[in-house]
Amino acid sequence: MSRSALDVSQKDDFPAWYQAAVREADLAEESGVRGCMIIKPWGNGLWERMKAILNAEIEATGHENCYFPVLIPLKHFEQEAQHVEGFAKEMAVVTHHRLKVIDGKLQPDPEARLEEPLIVRPTSETIIGSAMSRWVRSYRDLPLLLNQWANVMRWEMRPRMFLRTSEFLWQEGHTAHVDEKDAMEETERMLGVYRDFAVDALALPVVDGRKPEHERFPGAVETLTIEAMMRDGKALQSGTSHYLGTNFARAQNIQYQDQQGEWKHAHTTSWGLSTRMIGAVIMAHGDDDGLRLPPRVAPQQVVIIPMLKGAPEDEKIADYCAELARSLVGQEVFGEAIRVRVDLDQDKPQNKRWRWVKKGAPIICEIGPRDVENAKVAFLRRDTLRTEEGKINSHFVERVDFPAMAAEILAEIQTGLYARADAFLKAHTHTVASFEEMVELFGSGEPAWARVSWSRPTGAALETIVKRLKEHQLTVRVAPFDQGEIGQTCIFTGETAVETIVVAKAY
Amino acid sequence: MSRSALDVSQKDDFPAWYQAAVREADLAEESGVRGCMIIKPWGNGLWERMKAILNAEIEATGHENCYFPVLIPLKHFEQEAQHVEGFAKEMAVVTHHRLKVIDGKLQPDPEARLEEPLIVRPTSETIIGSAMSRWVRSYRDLPLLLNQWANVMRWEMRPRMFLRTSEFLWQEGHTAHVDEKDAMEETERMLGVYRDFAVDALALPVVDGRKPEHERFPGAVETLTIEAMMRDGKALQSGTSHYLGTNFARAQNIQYQDQQGEWKHAHTTSWGLSTRMIGAVIMAHGDDDGLRLPPRVAPQQVVIIPMLKGAPEDEKIADYCAELARSLVGQEVFGEAIRVRVDLDQDKPQNKRWRWVKKGAPIICEIGPRDVENAKVAFLRRDTLRTEEGKINSHFVERVDFPAMAAEILAEIQTGLYARADAFLKAHTHTVASFEEMVELFGSGEPAWARVSWSRPTGAALETIVKRLKEHQLTVRVAPFDQGEIGQTCIFTGETAVETIVVAKAY
Repeated sequence: MSRSALDVSQKDDFPAWYQAAVREADLAEESGVRGCMIIKPWGNGLWERMKAILNAEIEATGHENCYFPVLIPLKHFEQEAQHVEGFAKEMAVVTHHRLKVIDGKLQPDPEARLEEPLIVRPTSETIIGSAMSRWVRSYRDLPLLLNQWANVMRWEMRPRMFLRTSEFLWQEGHTAHVDEKDAMEETERMLGVYRDFAVDALALPVVDGRKPEHERFPGAVETLTIEAMMRDGKALQSGTSHYLGTNFARAQNIQYQDQQGEWKHAHTTSWGLSTRMIGAVIMAHGDDDGLRLPPRVAPQQVVIIPMLKGAPEDEKIADYCAELARSLVGQEVFGEAIRVRVDLDQDKPQNKRWRWVKKGAPIICEIGPRDVENAKVAFLRRDTLRTEEGKINSHFVERVDFPAMAAEILAEIQTGLYARADAFLKAHTHTVASFEEMVELFGSGEPAWARVSWSRPTGAALETIVKRLKEHQLTVRVAPFDQGEIGQTCIFTGETAVETIVVAKAY
Repeated sequence: MSRSALDVSQKDDFPAWYQAAVREADLAEESGVRGCMIIKPWGNGLWERMKAILNAEIEATGHENCYFPVLIPLKHFEQEAQHVEGFAKEMAVVTHHRLKVIDGKLQPDPEARLEEPLIVRPTSETIIGSAMSRWVRSYRDLPLLLNQWANVMRWEMRPRMFLRTSEFLWQEGHTAHVDEKDAMEETERMLGVYRDFAVDALALPVVDGRKPEHERFPGAVETLTIEAMMRDGKALQSGTSHYLGTNFARAQNIQYQDQQGEWKHAHTTSWGLSTRMIGAVIMAHGDDDGLRLPPRVAPQQVVIIPMLKGAPEDEKIADYCAELARSLVGQEVFGEAIRVRVDLDQDKPQNKRWRWVKKGAPIICEIGPRDVENAKVAFLRRDTLRTEEGKINSHFVERVDFPAMAAEILAEIQTGLYARADAFLKAHTHTVASFEEMVELFGSGEPAWARVSWSRPTGAALETIVKRLKEHQLTVRVAPFDQGEIGQTCIFTGETAVETIVVAKAY
C-alpha cells in the first residue's frame, strides 16, 4: 500500500492531521499575532466562493448589504446585560488613538487616551441596533433586513486555524420586524438558507434544530443551529440564527408606530456564518491525502499539469494544455464556466501532482508527450484518488470527450462527497436509551453522536446535567426539527421525556 | 425655473452641497463612533460594484487575494522608521483583551493588559512584509503578487464622509520582485489599472504621474498617483502606487537567493484604492439634484416606479412593470445583464421619483395607467434630467423599443459623463508662468488647476516652496507623465525648469 500524502493519518491523530491538512493545502498560517491567522490565496479563494454563493441567497431573500464600524463604543455593550456578560471576556479594547516615543520606546501616548474605550467588534447587534433605533419609525419601515460581510474579533486563548481564531471573517445578518411571528419566520428562513448552503454548496449534511436554552446566543430568546459531523465524530456548529425577541430593541430603543399609531418595540433577529465553515469542509471531506474540496466552492475545479522535461516537446505540451484549458472554460457546471488553471510553476510534475492533491483540487490532469501524440487526457479524480489497495487511480480519455466529461465528473464529485458524508453521519448517529449507554457509546472511541430523549429541564436540574455531560466532554448540540420518535423517559431525570436532543463532543 | 432637489447648490456652498448629496442619496451616515461612518445599502452597493470591476483587473494581472490580521504588533512598525513617523500620529491602539466591571463600571481589565500593544492596521506593509520574509527564499518565488480587500483605520480629527474617515475600506496590493526594473514596472502597471478603472468604470478623467518627493508615501522611493478634478476645482488623490525600493525588504528581511546563489533584498511595491473613490464619483458627476452615477457602477441602472393610486388599475400597472423589468434583465450592457429594480415601497410616486433622482439612478421609468394602455414607457434620464430652463425632461417611447434603447442610453450616459468631466478638467487647467499669475488664478474663485514648471528643488528650497503654497492652501499634486512643454524657468526659484507639475487645492 502506497503511503499517504500527509505524514499523519486521521486515525492516528486527528488534531495533528487537521493541522497538517491546513498547512499542506496552503490554506492559512499563524500570523504571529495572538490567535490571528493569515488566510492565504487558496483559503481565501475558497472563502470568496462560499461568500458569492451565500451572498446571492441572502440578497435573493430580500436583504441589503451595508457596512458598520469595526469599533464599537463600550457604552453600547452595557445596554444589553446578558450580551455583555457573554462577550466581555474576550474583547480587544482600544484605549488610545496615538503612539509616541517615550523613554526611547514607541508607546501609547498618555495624552491620546480615549475618554471612552472602543471595542473591536465581536459581533454587531449593539451598533446596528443603535442605527435601527434611528431608522425605524413606522410599521412601514419594517421588516428592515440588513446584512454585512466583516471581520470580527474575539480573543482566543487556545486558537485553532479556522475553527477558533481571534479574528475571523463572517457575514452577520440583522433584521427588525413588527412581531414575534414575522421575526421567527425570518429566523427560520435564514437557518434554512444556511442549511441549503451547507448541503448544496459544501456537500455537507447537517442536523438543523433548536439550541437548548443554556447554549443560546447571549441575549437571544431562541437560537437555531445547523450542526455537522466531522470525520472524528465531533460536532461542528456551522451556522446559527437567533430570534432576539424585544431584548435588543428595548436595550437599543428600536420602536415603531403601528397602524393604530401605537409605539411598539420591534422584534429583532441576527444570524451569522463564518470562516469556521472552512474548517467544516476540511474535516468533513478530507482524507489522509489532504483536502477534498466540493467542486462548487473549489477555487480551481480542474488543474492541468504539463509534464515538462526541458525537452523540445515541451512547447507542444504547453500549447496542448492551454488549448485544453480554453475548451474547459467553454463548459458549464453548476451554471458557471468551469474554473481551470494550468500550473506553469517551475517545479517537478510529481511535486505539483501532490501539491494539488493536498489542496483538494477535484480533477487533476497530467499531460505528457504521449497524451499530446494520441490526443488523450490523463487525469486523477480527487474523490477516488486511490484504488482499494491504495494505488493511484489514473484515468485516460479521448481529448475530445474530456470537457463534457469533466463537467459531469465535477457534478458527480459534488454529489458523491455529500452521499459519503451523509452515510457517515447516519452510520454514526445512535439512539441511546440511558445515560450509561451513552457514556459507553462515547467511550468506544468510535465517531458517534447520541440521540437521546429528555424532559427539557431548566435551572438547577439543567446545570447538573450540563456538569455531568462535561465530565465526558459532551454537550447538548441541538434539538432537531426532525424529532423522530421521542422516548418515554428522560435519560437524565427519569421524568417523562418531551424532546429528542443530539449529544456529542464538539469543536 | 424649477427648484433643485437638494436644498443647497454646488455654487453656493460646495461642502454643504456634498453633505446634502451624501445624505439625500442615503449613501452613508455618521455612526457616533468618532470619524467612522455607516455605509448604507446604496453606498455599499456602489462599492461592491467598484470592487468587482477592479478586482477582476487585479486578478487578471496575476495577483492573488489573501487576508492578513487587522491587528498588527507595535514592533512591526518600529522597523521602518519613516513609515512609523508617517503613521504613528493616527493609530488606534489595542491595549487590553478583556473588560471587567470595576466600581460598578465596565472597564478594561487591568489584569488583561497586553504585553505589547496591537495596532488596528492603518495599512499592511509591515505585517505582509513580515510574511513575505518567510515565504520568499529563492528567485523562483518572485514576483510574489498579493492583494487584500480590507478595512483600515487612521484616526481622523476632522472626518468627512468617504473622503476622510477614521475607518475606510480599500484594497491594498503588496508585491515583491527581484529588482528595481521589475518592481517599477509593477508600480506603473498598477497605476495604469487604477487609471483605466477611473476612466472606464467611473467615467472619471484623471491626470497620472509622479508625486513630488515631499508628498510620497512614508517609506516609499517613488509614489505614482492619479488625480481627479472635483466640480469645485479641488484635486482628489484617487489611487496611489508606491515603489518601496528595498526599504521595507531591509526592515522586514525579505531576501532571496538569485540564480548565482547570492542573497539579495527583494524590491517591493504597494498600491491602494479606497472608498474615497465614492467621494470622487459624487463630486465629479453630481449636480444640484444630487448624485449622477456612472451606469457601470450604479447598483441599479434602471428603476421602475409604478404610479399606483390605490385604484383598480394598480394591479395591471404592477404586472406591466414586472414584465418590463424582466425584459430589461434580458438585455446586456457593459457585458452584463441590466440591473433593474421595481420600486414597490409604500410611498407616493412623486417622492420615489425624487429619491431616485437624488440617488443618481441613471434611468428612472414612471409607469402610469396611460402607459399601460398605450404600451409606452415614460422615463427620465439622470444625466439630462432638466431642460435648459430647468424643467424636467420626460421621454416617451414604445414599450417594445425600450429594452434595447435602455442599453444604448446607459452606454451613452457612461460616455457622456466622462466627456463632460473631461471637458471640465481641460477647461479649468491653466498653464501659468509665474507665482503671481498662479496666485491670481486661484484667487479668482473659479475652479482651477495650474500647470507650472519648476526646477524640482529639494531640501530647504523645497520646504520654502511648500510653505509659500500652503499660505494659499495649495499643494503640488503631481508631475504628470504627460509633461507637455516644460517652461524655461522655475516659477518658484527662477532656476532652469526641468519638470511640469500640477498645483491645486486638494481634498
